[in-house]
Amino acid sequence: MTDPLSRTLSALADPTRRAILARLVTGEATVNELAEPFDISLPAISRHLKVLETAGLISRGRKAQWRPCRLEPGQLKAVDGWLERYRRFWEDSFDRMDLYLASLQKGSIDGEPN
Amino acid sequence: MTDPLSRTLSALADPTRRAILARLVTGEATVNELAEPFDISLPAISRHLKVLETAGLISRGRKAQWRPCRLEPGQLKAVDGWLERYRRFWEDSFDRMDLYLASLQKGSIDGEPN
Repeated sequence: MTDPLSRTLSALADPTRRAILARLVTGEATVNELAEPFDISLPAISRHLKVLETAGLISRGRKAQWRPCRLEPGQLKAVDGWLERYRRFWEDSFDRMDLYLASLQKGSIDGEPN
Repeated sequence: MTDPLSRTLSALADPTRRAILARLVTGEATVNELAEPFDISLPAISRHLKVLETAGLISRGRKAQWRPCRLEPGQLKAVDGWLERYRRFWEDSFDRMDLYLASLQKGSIDGEPN
């Protein structure tokens, strides 16, 4: 029922899951390795991994016992693509802020507003 | 309890809320204007707006009756900043894919794997 982008954003809306992805940037890792920095149970980590896997953000190796996790960047790229139309918007905002700050420095705030 | 980035990503994990933001790229809009393209009730739209406002993705005007909604790009910029470390990763992936496709074209797939 849920569209892929919503599923991805929902999976990312959790600091533990984002920390797991951040770890996987440095390379593949097992569930035990991923669990190490967190003060939560292995089953809880496994549930987080299942959410990330369902969202297509990670994949798991096929080796029966080891099953290393790997970051899959395609869905993050989809989020980046969705953001694209808004990028211009905040760049514009910062341009306007720059103009405003420049006008402050020129002291025009004391004269006519421009 | 929820961190701002998680709240933002959670707010974005809904196609109606993303469509509302897409509409606000073109300028401020009232609740009635925002509700128009959707086959859902005004109270339901208001709930979506509340989620977006709590996440800092929109702000509402102070005029008592009209209260236009406006896109606030700061939190989207935070998502963009979070994505930054992963951007390199998928660019690398596409570079690797390019190399793979180039090797296919050179016919090296029929010889020694490289």
